[in-house]
Amino acid sequence: MNYQKIISSLGIMLMIIGVSMVLPLMWSLYYGDSDWLAFLGSSIVTFLAGFVAHKATKLEGTFHNREAFIVVTFSWLLASAFGAIPYILTGTFTSYADAFFETMSGFTTTGASVLTDIESLPHGVLFWRSLTHWLGGMGIVVLFIAILSSLGTGGMQMFRAESPGPVAEKIKPRISETAKILWYTYLLFTIVETLLLWLLGMPLFDALCHTFGTLATGGFSTKNASIGYYTNPMIHWVITIFMFMSGANFALYYQALRGRSLWTFWRNPEFKLYSLIVLASIAFVSFDLFLAGIKGIGNILNLASFQVVSIITTTGYATADFDRWPFFSQAILVALMFVGGCAGSTGGSIKVGRILVLLKQCLLELQKVVHPRAIMNLKIGAKNVPHDIVINILQFFFIYILITIFGTVFMALLGLDLTSAFTAVAATLGNVGPGLAKVGPVQNYSFIPATGKYMLSIFMLLGRLELYTVLVLILPSFWKK
Amino acid sequence: MNYQKIISSLGIMLMIIGVSMVLPLMWSLYYGDSDWLAFLGSSIVTFLAGFVAHKATKLEGTFHNREAFIVVTFSWLLASAFGAIPYILTGTFTSYADAFFETMSGFTTTGASVLTDIESLPHGVLFWRSLTHWLGGMGIVVLFIAILSSLGTGGMQMFRAESPGPVAEKIKPRISETAKILWYTYLLFTIVETLLLWLLGMPLFDALCHTFGTLATGGFSTKNASIGYYTNPMIHWVITIFMFMSGANFALYYQALRGRSLWTFWRNPEFKLYSLIVLASIAFVSFDLFLAGIKGIGNILNLASFQVVSIITTTGYATADFDRWPFFSQAILVALMFVGGCAGSTGGSIKVGRILVLLKQCLLELQKVVHPRAIMNLKIGAKNVPHDIVINILQFFFIYILITIFGTVFMALLGLDLTSAFTAVAATLGNVGPGLAKVGPVQNYSFIPATGKYMLSIFMLLGRLELYTVLVLILPSFWKK
Repeated sequence: MNYQKIISSLGIMLMIIGVSMVLPLMWSLYYGDSDWLAFLGSSIVTFLAGFVAHKATKLEGTFHNREAFIVVTFSWLLASAFGAIPYILTGTFTSYADAFFETMSGFTTTGASVLTDIESLPHGVLFWRSLTHWLGGMGIVVLFIAILSSLGTGGMQMFRAESPGPVAEKIKPRISETAKILWYTYLLFTIVETLLLWLLGMPLFDALCHTFGTLATGGFSTKNASIGYYTNPMIHWVITIFMFMSGANFALYYQALRGRSLWTFWRNPEFKLYSLIVLASIAFVSFDLFLAGIKGIGNILNLASFQVVSIITTTGYATADFDRWPFFSQAILVALMFVGGCAGSTGGSIKVGRILVLLKQCLLELQKVVHPRAIMNLKIGAKNVPHDIVINILQFFFIYILITIFGTVFMALLGLDLTSAFTAVAATLGNVGPGLAKVGPVQNYSFIPATGKYMLSIFMLLGRLELYTVLVLILPSFWKK
Repeated sequence: MNYQKIISSLGIMLMIIGVSMVLPLMWSLYYGDSDWLAFLGSSIVTFLAGFVAHKATKLEGTFHNREAFIVVTFSWLLASAFGAIPYILTGTFTSYADAFFETMSGFTTTGASVLTDIESLPHGVLFWRSLTHWLGGMGIVVLFIAILSSLGTGGMQMFRAESPGPVAEKIKPRISETAKILWYTYLLFTIVETLLLWLLGMPLFDALCHTFGTLATGGFSTKNASIGYYTNPMIHWVITIFMFMSGANFALYYQALRGRSLWTFWRNPEFKLYSLIVLASIAFVSFDLFLAGIKGIGNILNLASFQVVSIITTTGYATADFDRWPFFSQAILVALMFVGGCAGSTGGSIKVGRILVLLKQCLLELQKVVHPRAIMNLKIGAKNVPHDIVINILQFFFIYILITIFGTVFMALLGLDLTSAFTAVAATLGNVGPGLAKVGPVQNYSFIPATGKYMLSIFMLLGRLELYTVLVLILPSFWKK
């Protein structure tokens, strides 16, 4: 195990986090808030810790799978551990468990909050909250790879360990170029959405923060009532569309642009299923809201689209308290928490690509039961999916549900009722944010004991890194020579 | 497709069901109830329908997989369709949906009831209810194979279609002999438990009915308060032990007897895991009940053991209203609904054997993530588990959860809250019986609309026949030449 290079890499990553804290510092200074000192301190501490780690070790030698898993998992853990410092220094939280939960929730783009009054916070803190989303959305390690073109071997391994999606589209032969293109696309979308929201009347600060929350499919808002604070339905629609776009594979945008063809999207089986699920869910929820007596077809479509897209993309913004919606709509939203965005999107959860494989394999398996001796291979689009990958995805699903069940039992032990416990786990493991009942969209996670907050933070990390990258670290055999 | 033999076989099966209706008829006469005529009528109608079907067709030619799936699925559907007649003729139900639900719940050993006052029913009806459990527990088709030694080819296919458990132990080379041994063991247990319950003070009629409900892991009682009606803790313990035994592979009893060694059980990896889960769950629930302030260590152990064993074996008897237990215990019980008994037991749900494969494959998959080129095979005991079976079991798990999710959404559409909807589906698909909230152990399923009752009946059938046997019938390719 190349521990030197591991620590050195983690050092660089911490320096990046330290530098990024300068941005909230600048907003603090701009608004003349008193908390700029807290951000200066956090930034220096984080940068220095990274600098020392980096300088004391050598960034040499090769990286294999094992080192990549360690660097990626610890990057996220350290980013959250140090990213929590500003919350403590500004006095936003007095408990470190709260600060860690909020930061992990930010980086993993979960958007679950332990804050009870968001609007009372200074601008620096609000911006830092949203910035963690933006950094985590496209991936801390992907950013790191994009910045450090000369990382040597190991970039690909780390890229895969952070975004192990089932159908990884290759954009460019060099991984650092791929990382750069992904970040450029992300940046472009950021500018466009911010401008649109600003033109629709949102102050620039809020427009930027909500854009971060949208594109990263995060969900942190600067308002207590989330997006429901804004009454202009056009704002809801713009955010709905950008959430939907962020739930699609970012590689598709580059391919569509290069091929100058929108058919790129329709030819992608995952995107097709994703759109289909979204449209069907909107139709069902709209119908249900109509039956429940909600007035105005435009209003119903707006409410249904926003909430459906927010949940399936695992964003977690809300324009309605869906905890009070009819049970049918609630059930659909909870089911969507287990779907998530496409592979290569900023969305979390199981992901549509995996669901596609699982569904297709279903039919194949049924045919195999009838014709046990027939040889059948799973095809997605024109490609054969090897047996190993099918087993991997099936096993992913099992582990995902297993963690959900264990998590629910654990949260019930802490005193949560079954609906709250189950949806709290589903919403953190899936990086969604709000659940139902006590963790519903107008509630928050502050009432949960510290043990529960740490446990849910681990679920967020497990979900963001798609289980395996974190789980392999608990194998004793992993650490053996 | 050999339709002649299919219809002829279904005819024989119906005749068996018709004959079995003579037993409740006899209890009716014994107690001098007025409903004996209803049973006579039902018996004649069912027997005649079977007789005509059997005589009009030829029991010749061969059976392949496809024919076996059809015979088994339709055996259960027809048994429930005709088995519902006594409920209608005796006036127990005025709605056929109710009668069909209750009968399917009986045969599939689910034990979910739509009755609101059980104790007001005549003896014949109570006995028929419990008898459907007993017939369905070991398998209608297995009984049929045991009786008809000269069935020719197809017995094995049908046996597998009805009990497709993951680790089918071969007892005897001839399938009809295996079926006979299973039924003899079952009969022996029936006599022993009935005698024990009778000695402990239960009237013979109730002892017999509760024995049927126990050994079949069914759950229908002759009392409104289920086993909670009896205050003698020894009765609770006897039933707990027999439920536990019925959740184990019946082949093990034969093997243990032949080998004269109790080690047979401990050497079986599935039985080991089953015992472990039961013991751990009892420990956790006992601890939780202790914290909740329930008095008396013996009382706590009795309550915890009974409820844990009742749920994991998918029996569904209750001595406490666990819907009012602390959330931790509730969460454990709901999780156990997804475990079920061992392969080759009368228990339902996913089954411990599958859980064992899923858990072991987890570790293997994690190792594979670290060492992608290593070749690893799953071993259970001394045996290698082939890739095909691993995929089949993983896929089984996915389909099981998929149906649970779809079912929950569907039940929510009918107006059930999420806890009731989810546990209603889990409890019917897993053949457990009671769920939580509106379908809790002291509630019943009567309030659910007819559509919901038919849907839940299908879930019971899907669960009892372990999904594939029923699901293949909806493939269009299944019916093509």
